[in-house]
Amino acid sequence: MTATDVVVVGGGLIGTATAWRLAQAGLDVTLVVGERSAAASRVAAGMLAAVTETTFTERTLLALNQASAQRWPSFSAEVVEASGRPSGLREGPTVSVASDPDDSARLRTFADYLDRQGLAAQRLTSRECRALEPLLAPTVRSGLLVPSDWSCDNRVLLEALTTAAQRAGVREVTGFVHRVESADGHVTGATLADGTTLPTRRVVLANGAWAAQVDGVPTVPVRPVKGQIVRLDPGRFPCPGLTVRAFSRGNEVYLVPREHGREVVIGATVEEQGFDHRVTAGGIYELLRDARQVIPMTAEYALAETSVGWRPNTPDNAPIFGGCALEGLSLATGHHRNGVLLTPVSADVAASYVLTGVLDDVAAPFTLGRFDRTSEPALEVAR
Amino acid sequence: MTATDVVVVGGGLIGTATAWRLAQAGLDVTLVVGERSAAASRVAAGMLAAVTETTFTERTLLALNQASAQRWPSFSAEVVEASGRPSGLREGPTVSVASDPDDSARLRTFADYLDRQGLAAQRLTSRECRALEPLLAPTVRSGLLVPSDWSCDNRVLLEALTTAAQRAGVREVTGFVHRVESADGHVTGATLADGTTLPTRRVVLANGAWAAQVDGVPTVPVRPVKGQIVRLDPGRFPCPGLTVRAFSRGNEVYLVPREHGREVVIGATVEEQGFDHRVTAGGIYELLRDARQVIPMTAEYALAETSVGWRPNTPDNAPIFGGCALEGLSLATGHHRNGVLLTPVSADVAASYVLTGVLDDVAAPFTLGRFDRTSEPALEVAR
Repeated sequence: MTATDVVVVGGGLIGTATAWRLAQAGLDVTLVVGERSAAASRVAAGMLAAVTETTFTERTLLALNQASAQRWPSFSAEVVEASGRPSGLREGPTVSVASDPDDSARLRTFADYLDRQGLAAQRLTSRECRALEPLLAPTVRSGLLVPSDWSCDNRVLLEALTTAAQRAGVREVTGFVHRVESADGHVTGATLADGTTLPTRRVVLANGAWAAQVDGVPTVPVRPVKGQIVRLDPGRFPCPGLTVRAFSRGNEVYLVPREHGREVVIGATVEEQGFDHRVTAGGIYELLRDARQVIPMTAEYALAETSVGWRPNTPDNAPIFGGCALEGLSLATGHHRNGVLLTPVSADVAASYVLTGVLDDVAAPFTLGRFDRTSEPALEVAR
Repeated sequence: MTATDVVVVGGGLIGTATAWRLAQAGLDVTLVVGERSAAASRVAAGMLAAVTETTFTERTLLALNQASAQRWPSFSAEVVEASGRPSGLREGPTVSVASDPDDSARLRTFADYLDRQGLAAQRLTSRECRALEPLLAPTVRSGLLVPSDWSCDNRVLLEALTTAAQRAGVREVTGFVHRVESADGHVTGATLADGTTLPTRRVVLANGAWAAQVDGVPTVPVRPVKGQIVRLDPGRFPCPGLTVRAFSRGNEVYLVPREHGREVVIGATVEEQGFDHRVTAGGIYELLRDARQVIPMTAEYALAETSVGWRPNTPDNAPIFGGCALEGLSLATGHHRNGVLLTPVSADVAASYVLTGVLDDVAAPFTLGRFDRTSEPALEVAR
C-alpha cells in the first residue's frame, strides 16, 4: 500500500474537519472512520455554549471556547461554500433558567461571575423569560440570556464536513485503528482491527473517547463519560424558539430546538459507566421529567429517538492538542462536552500542527505534557 | 377468484385463533392480515387478568373472562401441540400493591368485593409483599395476591397461532378489508384496499379497533383507545418474578415479566385519542415514573422498546360476538383490555357461530343487538 501523507483517526466532527483542513493545504489525507453512528458528534445536542457551559474553575478553557466561538461564523460560511450543504448553524441565543430559590441564587452567582469576566449576559425576570420563550413553565423564577451561545445541528454539520472533506480529496477508510506503528521513535503507520496497515509518517488521533484504546502510543488520559439523550418531535405542537438550559432542583437539563421545528434535543445524563451502551429507563425518565418541568409542552411531543454517546473527558475537562513523545503522532481529542463548539479551532490547531510542527498559541495550554506535572492539577481543579 | 368458505378479517390473536378453529373444523378459510406490527395483539402486555382487571360494575363480563381463563391451560396445550412452538403462557400469580393510604383503602374494598364474588385472593402485608417479590419498593403498604391471574407472552402466542393456522390450512392474504360486499341481505365477499374482492358467503370481523372502519356492514360501536407501553430489558439486573399491578397515587401501572427474564412490559396509558400513533414524551415519562415507584430497580433496566396500540373498546367495555342484520357476517371484536385473556373463548365462540349459526351460552349477553336497547345501559354502567 502506498504511503499517505497523514492518517487522521476518527470520522467525527474534529477528525473530519481536521482532514478537510489538511487536504485544503495540499496533503494526501486518509481519514479512518469507525462507527459514525456511535460518534459523540452524532449523539450530541450541538450547543455552542462557550458562556453558559463555563464554570468558575475553567478560565483557561473558557478562552479556548471563546476563540472557537468567534471562528464559528466564518467556519460555517466556509463549510457551506465547500460542501454546497447547510452547516447546521443556528444563530439564536440561549436562556438559562431557574425554578426554585436555590437555582435562582446559583444563577445570580453565575451572572456575577460572567460580569466579572466581561461576558455578555442579561438577567431576566420570570415575566421576561416567558415573554422571550412563551413555552417556559410559569414556575420559572429567573433567567439569564446569553446572546452569544448559539447552537448547531451537529448531524447536519457532520454531513456537510464529510462532503467538504471528500471534495477536497480526503480518502475515507472504514475501520478502527487498533495500533500506531513506529520505528526509531517515529510513526510508520496505522494498523486497523482487520490487520491492514496504512503506511504514513503522520497520524492525528481524533477518535474522541476511543483515543485511549489505541496501542503503540503514549498514554492518552481520555475516558468515556456516558451521556443519554433524547430527541423529541413537536409534530403539530409549538416548538421552543430558544435554546433553554435549566437547573431544576439540582438537575441540569437542556433543550435545543432545531431551526426547522421538527426536533428538540433533550440532554443529557452524565454517567461514569465506561463504554456502557444502554439507554436506561432511569436515564430517559429523568430527562423527560426535567424537560417537562421547564417546558411542560414537551410532554406532548413524540419521543423520536433515544441514544447514548461517550464524551471524551480528561482529568481537567479540557482537550489535548499537539505532539507527544512519539514523533509524527499528534492529538486532537478530549473535547468532553465542547466538541461541537470546539470544532473550528480544533481543526485549525490540529492541521496547523501537522503542517508546521508548531502549536498555535491558543492551544498552548492544552498539550499532553500538562499531565506530566504530578505536583499540581493540570490546568485548574476539575469540576 | 374461487370462493372461500369463510373470510376472517384480522391477523391478531382473535382472528388467527378463530381461523385456526374453523380450519380444524374442515372449512376453507382465508385470513386477511393487515399490519401485524400494529395489532393490539403484538403491543399488549399479555396479562390474563380475569380477577385483577374486574370492576364492581362488570359482573357479566367477569363471567366471560373467567370462562376464558379456565380454558387457558387446555388451549395452551393445544396450541403447543398444533404449532410445535411455545404458547407463551406463564402460570405465575399476579400481585396488586398499594403505596399510600388511599390506594390501600381502595385495595381493601376491592378485596372485599372479590370475597363476595367468591374469587380467590390473598391479602398481604407490606412484609409479605416484599417476601414474595423482593424487588418491590419498601414504600409498598399492602398487597393482594391473585394466584389465578397468569400472563402470556402475546407475541410468542401470536407466532404459535399463526403457525398452527397455517398448518391447519388457513390461507393468509395480506391487506386491509375496506368493504363487505352483499346482495339480497347476504354477504357475497370482502373487498380489500387494493380493490381485490375475496368471494365468500361468510365473513368474521375480528379486526379489533378497525372494525368500525369497514363499509357495507351495520354500525359496529367499537372505538380505538390508545395505549402507550414500554418494554424494558433487565440485562444483568434481577427481573421481577411476579406480575405486579399498582395504583400509585391514582395512576394504574402494571409490570409483566417474561419467563426468560429478558423483558419486563410496563403498561399502559389510556388515551381517547383515536388512532393517534405517537409515542409521547409525557406518556413514556409517566410509565417509567410509576414503574420505578413500584419497583425502583426498573430505573436500571434498558429501554428496549416503546410502542402504541389501540384497544378495541365498546360502550360497555365488553366484546361483541354473533351475527347482525347482514346475513353471513359475524363479529368477534371489542375486546378492549382483555383480548389476550379472551382469545380461547372468543375463538371457540366465533368458530362455533360460523359453523352452527348458534351463539354459545357463554357469549349470549354479548351480541351486537344489546346496543339497540336505547332505554338503559347495554350490560351495566361502563367504567
